[in-house]
Amino acid sequence: MLHAVIMAGGVGARFWPLSRRHRPKQLIDLTGEGTMIEQTMSRLDGLVDSENVWIVTNADQAAQIKKLVPQFRDDRFIIEPVGRNTAPAIGLAAVHLHKSDPDAVMIVLPADHRITNIPQFHFCLTSAVEVVHDSELLATIGIQPTRPETGYGYIQMDTSGIRLRDNVYPVRTFAEKPNLATARLFLESGEFLWNSGMFVWRADSILKLIRDLLPLWGVAFEEIDGAIGTPQEQNVTRRVFESGKGISIDYGVMEKAPRVAVVRGTFDWNDVGSWDEVWRLMPHDDHGNAIRGNVTLANTHNTCVLGNKKLIAVTGVSNLIIVETEDDDHDLPAR
Amino acid sequence: MLHAVIMAGGVGARFWPLSRRHRPKQLIDLTGEGTMIEQTMSRLDGLVDSENVWIVTNADQAAQIKKLVPQFRDDRFIIEPVGRNTAPAIGLAAVHLHKSDPDAVMIVLPADHRITNIPQFHFCLTSAVEVVHDSELLATIGIQPTRPETGYGYIQMDTSGIRLRDNVYPVRTFAEKPNLATARLFLESGEFLWNSGMFVWRADSILKLIRDLLPLWGVAFEEIDGAIGTPQEQNVTRRVFESGKGISIDYGVMEKAPRVAVVRGTFDWNDVGSWDEVWRLMPHDDHGNAIRGNVTLANTHNTCVLGNKKLIAVTGVSNLIIVETEDDDHDLPAR
Repeated sequence: MLHAVIMAGGVGARFWPLSRRHRPKQLIDLTGEGTMIEQTMSRLDGLVDSENVWIVTNADQAAQIKKLVPQFRDDRFIIEPVGRNTAPAIGLAAVHLHKSDPDAVMIVLPADHRITNIPQFHFCLTSAVEVVHDSELLATIGIQPTRPETGYGYIQMDTSGIRLRDNVYPVRTFAEKPNLATARLFLESGEFLWNSGMFVWRADSILKLIRDLLPLWGVAFEEIDGAIGTPQEQNVTRRVFESGKGISIDYGVMEKAPRVAVVRGTFDWNDVGSWDEVWRLMPHDDHGNAIRGNVTLANTHNTCVLGNKKLIAVTGVSNLIIVETEDDDHDLPAR
Repeated sequence: MLHAVIMAGGVGARFWPLSRRHRPKQLIDLTGEGTMIEQTMSRLDGLVDSENVWIVTNADQAAQIKKLVPQFRDDRFIIEPVGRNTAPAIGLAAVHLHKSDPDAVMIVLPADHRITNIPQFHFCLTSAVEVVHDSELLATIGIQPTRPETGYGYIQMDTSGIRLRDNVYPVRTFAEKPNLATARLFLESGEFLWNSGMFVWRADSILKLIRDLLPLWGVAFEEIDGAIGTPQEQNVTRRVFESGKGISIDYGVMEKAPRVAVVRGTFDWNDVGSWDEVWRLMPHDDHGNAIRGNVTLANTHNTCVLGNKKLIAVTGVSNLIIVETEDDDHDLPAR
């Protein structure tokens, strides 16, 4: 059966003060369209049965998500006792899915991306599912680049051989975030896609590769697998996570896996990774200003103002991000 | 006897949002040294008996000043029913002073200036008092300019004839706010002083000149003079103010008076007329930033931050004024 796993482990840092240690990006409404976690969930309507949507997160965020989406089933939260990056989080989800459905195919989605062309999004994921559901292939979703972005990793398609579907290619290499010159070459080549952090595979396929490539985590997940549904489950999970080493799925598995496919994603995608992106995604006035809340502007250009309760009056400035929030967390931005 | 009249009629506009319609500049602590009205009052210690200090203001501000300075005598407030600029405000004060002390000499001081060299300030006012106490002369305090400021009016000294004291000259002309080229000529000439809005004269002298030069106000003040101490005082004052026309003491009296002297002020004076001035008056860090409140700066230059309760975090900006206040007045800035 087809499952979706939403990765909601991120901690609030880049969007301070709107995001906070206890209110990360996926739980806030950055662009005025609703929280990103809710958008990510509703984006799966028509693709994945809502009973088969899982969320990997920590206990604190799970409680907050439950408030936002009360109908979400408690037993579909998979709780990371401590954050250990994406490979252990995905592995933990795979163990749980595989336990409840040995034939599970899992779509892995970050909780904090923005996607607007939903039919194309569903089409791409369906292509990936078709490729992996009866194989050991790992599939990743690449995004057709539109600019020489240096903030993303890239995936090079192997366009020389046999395509797996019209829009699915074998992966030649994964490339780290490039410098601008390299990013331009990537863009011109037509062979490189942005690495979106979205994946599709059988739960048993990714567990086998974790055993092969991250053997300590392989042992850990076997131990958790044995404890699921027993009174020891929580303690075992905590112990192996606390003693385990953090590693990303890209570095730990994808770059070393023997058979990886990439879907050439044709939907509109934005990782909303910076205040600049937030400003770009909001509606603008004639002077390039994007505002929310109780805001009055005079002689102001290319400025993003996110108000909350207070009146914010701005005059004679340009190229600023201005954010007002309750100071309920008393945390300073991560440096 | 020597009296001081503090003019506290100004309404909050230029320092919005720190100053408000009901909390003008003189009632706020702009520079971290206390409110300007309190500084203006304490600046008179040793020069004017505190029993002889009067404040001309409206009823709303009088109540607020009373909260700041509870020991200030209620009968030393002179209430303007409506604002009619400086000539009527000063005339009203003169009527009251003259009524209580026919021999009164009055020092007129704006409530919202900053002066730091107090002994020199006292010396200059004392020179003026000596010049006017037994004559019909009007004395004004000029400030030795230090830059070609275009934001002030100027007073030209007559340096060709007889000085009245070492530092007191007859006035040749009053000049409106100049353009920059003219301001430079004024500065180079050595004959021009900044018009500080501080005056010294006998109460009967200014009342006589108001009768001569502003005859309608002269009649008005005779009517008020007759009503002081009677049950009609407040009604009469309100009626004549409401029907009277606003006019400044400079335009209405000083520029037309036959005999005006100017004291060359040698104390440090600042009218704190703009946010720039506030920034200049505050202590700075090595990057030219001046801050108050709960403020954290990174990569920030020449910026003034006045915090209140909230944490204000600023990064990557320069040449800004950032002010946070309670939004208790809901008024927008005057345009």
